[in-house]
Amino acid sequence: MTLTGHQLLGSRESAASSDTFVARNLAAGEDLSPAFHEATEAEIDEAVKLANDAFPVFRGLCPEARAEFLEAIAEEVLALGDDLLERASAETAHPLPRCAAERDRVLTHTRQFAAWIREGSWVDARIDTGNPERQPLPKPDVRSLLEPVGPVVVFGASNFPIAISVLGTDTISAFAAGCPVVVKAHPAHPGTCEIAARAIQRAAARSGVPDGVFSLVHGLSHETGTRLVQHPGIAAAAFTGSLAGGRALFNAANSRPCPIPFYAEMGSINPVFLLPGALKARAEAIAQGFVGALTAGVGQFCTNPGLVLGLEGEEWAQFRSIAAEKVAAFKPATMLHGGIHGAYSKGVAERLQRSGLELVGQSASAASPERGEAAAYLFSTSREGLLADPTLFDELFGPVSTLVSCRSPGDFLEAAEKLEGSLSATIHGTEEDLSNHRELIELLRRKVGRLIFNGYPVGLEICHSIHHGGPYPATTHPHFTSIGTRAMHRFVRPVCYQDWPDSLLPSELQNSNPRGVFRLLNGQHSREEVG
Amino acid sequence: MTLTGHQLLGSRESAASSDTFVARNLAAGEDLSPAFHEATEAEIDEAVKLANDAFPVFRGLCPEARAEFLEAIAEEVLALGDDLLERASAETAHPLPRCAAERDRVLTHTRQFAAWIREGSWVDARIDTGNPERQPLPKPDVRSLLEPVGPVVVFGASNFPIAISVLGTDTISAFAAGCPVVVKAHPAHPGTCEIAARAIQRAAARSGVPDGVFSLVHGLSHETGTRLVQHPGIAAAAFTGSLAGGRALFNAANSRPCPIPFYAEMGSINPVFLLPGALKARAEAIAQGFVGALTAGVGQFCTNPGLVLGLEGEEWAQFRSIAAEKVAAFKPATMLHGGIHGAYSKGVAERLQRSGLELVGQSASAASPERGEAAAYLFSTSREGLLADPTLFDELFGPVSTLVSCRSPGDFLEAAEKLEGSLSATIHGTEEDLSNHRELIELLRRKVGRLIFNGYPVGLEICHSIHHGGPYPATTHPHFTSIGTRAMHRFVRPVCYQDWPDSLLPSELQNSNPRGVFRLLNGQHSREEVG
Repeated sequence: MTLTGHQLLGSRESAASSDTFVARNLAAGEDLSPAFHEATEAEIDEAVKLANDAFPVFRGLCPEARAEFLEAIAEEVLALGDDLLERASAETAHPLPRCAAERDRVLTHTRQFAAWIREGSWVDARIDTGNPERQPLPKPDVRSLLEPVGPVVVFGASNFPIAISVLGTDTISAFAAGCPVVVKAHPAHPGTCEIAARAIQRAAARSGVPDGVFSLVHGLSHETGTRLVQHPGIAAAAFTGSLAGGRALFNAANSRPCPIPFYAEMGSINPVFLLPGALKARAEAIAQGFVGALTAGVGQFCTNPGLVLGLEGEEWAQFRSIAAEKVAAFKPATMLHGGIHGAYSKGVAERLQRSGLELVGQSASAASPERGEAAAYLFSTSREGLLADPTLFDELFGPVSTLVSCRSPGDFLEAAEKLEGSLSATIHGTEEDLSNHRELIELLRRKVGRLIFNGYPVGLEICHSIHHGGPYPATTHPHFTSIGTRAMHRFVRPVCYQDWPDSLLPSELQNSNPRGVFRLLNGQHSREEVG
Repeated sequence: MTLTGHQLLGSRESAASSDTFVARNLAAGEDLSPAFHEATEAEIDEAVKLANDAFPVFRGLCPEARAEFLEAIAEEVLALGDDLLERASAETAHPLPRCAAERDRVLTHTRQFAAWIREGSWVDARIDTGNPERQPLPKPDVRSLLEPVGPVVVFGASNFPIAISVLGTDTISAFAAGCPVVVKAHPAHPGTCEIAARAIQRAAARSGVPDGVFSLVHGLSHETGTRLVQHPGIAAAAFTGSLAGGRALFNAANSRPCPIPFYAEMGSINPVFLLPGALKARAEAIAQGFVGALTAGVGQFCTNPGLVLGLEGEEWAQFRSIAAEKVAAFKPATMLHGGIHGAYSKGVAERLQRSGLELVGQSASAASPERGEAAAYLFSTSREGLLADPTLFDELFGPVSTLVSCRSPGDFLEAAEKLEGSLSATIHGTEEDLSNHRELIELLRRKVGRLIFNGYPVGLEICHSIHHGGPYPATTHPHFTSIGTRAMHRFVRPVCYQDWPDSLLPSELQNSNPRGVFRLLNGQHSREEVG
């Protein structure tokens, strides 16, 4: 596929600015063509205007039409063939099978949202019928359901160029909800973004959704992002990326004259607690699984396990030594881009100098800085060392983790108390272990979005029940998730109809329940008609 | 009941500061005893510490125990007898029957939340069962539900001293969700707050909920509020009041190192559109209903209709003249407090000077400034006058409204385009009118939280379907409501359990579904067991 590096504004292209940037194949040490044009203010205005023009028509489509649009996106993504995977691999150094797995995930979540809006009960339709005879005042008929908020801006993640970028749950769930989307292309994989965006363009054209439902704009500067979240025509924004970037855009969204919800998923430390029964039974297997999770994707997952806590003793020593061996066996590999590689190298260098930290394992082969490679590192400290160094609770993006030797379950509690909000926490144990550490579990329930038993935090199941969120700094709003069908809730709000004529109500609220959705009818859950 | 003016910190009292303030009976021109002590930083710390200590126990109670606590609150409120109503009337100038109606509303919403958490399906339990045989990767068992976020701060409204204050939906829904609450007493009705708080204290004591589930602190200064929302031990906050106050606290919450959700309901303009068919059929009845809504509670409702638009012609002239007569008949009455009276008087005086506005009606009797009385005012302008003066879209809290004479349905659209977010919009019309003004309805759906047909915006039905929210500046987050059972969603977040042992799951997620709640089981809505 020939790339142009232009803004895709609805079905049109534009390249008004002569400021350009290029993507880079870090592993090969080569820049990649073409040059991508920075979006101008006028181009951003145009994208937002098109989105606003499209909104009333798009939201008015029946769910079946939106579902067909989503399925068309899945088909067009498949039809891209290897173009998408190869460009993503070149821009991010992800191996091709990983890129293919990301594409599969896009197909899964896109089809899942199509099925979900066809079923339709997600709108949370509620009906309380009226009673004109009620004393002292007549009771009005009140009905409500979730409706789309308006045009949404999406900022994709650097580490999932296909599955959490142009084609990620953010975009797809916004479409499912009835919101037009303007995507800010990630400047580290702009070519992948353009290829993906053209699939959406084609799907839009053949599905008959209004022009402007989707636009893609490019920008290397922070200004582009700020302009987008502060644009008066934007109703909400979603972001996956760093804490610094997410917080800056969160502040920009909240300082608008008219603030809008800004949903950022910013990664976390994802602690792992190894309870005694589990270590006793399977220290080696856990060490293997842990290092697999730590080094998968060169450690570049927001659910990467950055902190592992265990009780001192023979099994913990065994776990540490096997984990160190496995880390040594990890062959350094190229990171996503130079910025991430630089931050990782600096962070590791700092840790290597710190007095309270012992280096217990590292990749046996040397990393090539020119190729942007990361070696894996395993550090160790004591409870005292952890509590004395709050930076150990901060995410360092890459294949590095800290093992914390504790002397008692009380040490676990002290560490858990200091945790900030996290996407996940993992416990390895027997059921008896869990019963013996209820206080720890209770603490973790307050701090994290997902609790994992005898597993590993990386690798999210794409389903209705998944929650990929958590208290700050994991996200900017703990009520919402960026993965799974609940993700739609970010882009909708209740609208209430009082004494509204039945024929003019949204279909999910009409007496006859023509879509057959589950509703809350006078406080009872049912699919029944009114009357 | 003897009031002390102390902070109520769990079951204890404290009055560490010698800074005090008093409430005022504005109608009688008298200060009311006792003096209320400003909360000190240490007292605020203590309230928050108690709330955090109480949280793990409180959230762990079975829903039945929390429901009984809510019902005990209702009983203790009833047992207060007239003390509550009389103090509220003295502090706010609300007539006693209005105070009694507010108390009834507290009983209604408190019992409704008790029933709602007994039923239990509100937790949105979702289960996707695992499959260890799945290729290429085993499928984990993933389950999730809504859990409480932690201690919540509540700022009540000046205009509902009983129903949207200490005993409002904010406090009751937070308790229902499992969150301890620290209420910042409204400084204009601190005595009513203390009386209500003592009812909650008694209910807590006899229900066996942990001490610290509820505290009340007093403060006249903005500092108290800022301290509360910026306290690291607070997880969320709810506020009903002015745009200036709400925005300041919203900014304070978002500028924390660890931001928290701050839910403010800040009122709005609540436009009313009078379509031709309705005016033709019943101009007089609409004028009567409108002026009733405008002057109810001396115009001090956040759903007060501040803007009325109609098409020029005989019926519109008739409506205007009858509305002007009814406004003339409104007897000036005392407002909530001196601050509101001052702002209202200033706002009306400014409008009286403005060239594009015509005064078409005002209370025939003079208002007494000493007694803090408000007269009602009705202004009139043209489409051009409205579009030239953006302040006419801003709420002026009190019994004042602007009639806008339009020449065509296009004028309606232009006005609706300029609307900011609003809690409600009202349409009077025939069904044919509605069909003829679909574009107007579509625009209003984007701007407001509640659409009312042939009714009036004041007087909210307390039910599952109600939505009392809307885009900014109506609220700070359009997804949430401060009234109705959906209000609980502000104080919960999903927590996800992956491969978690069945016996240690929250009961709503256990295989056998012991509470019999509706769940989403592998994508199907049902009350069925797993397996």
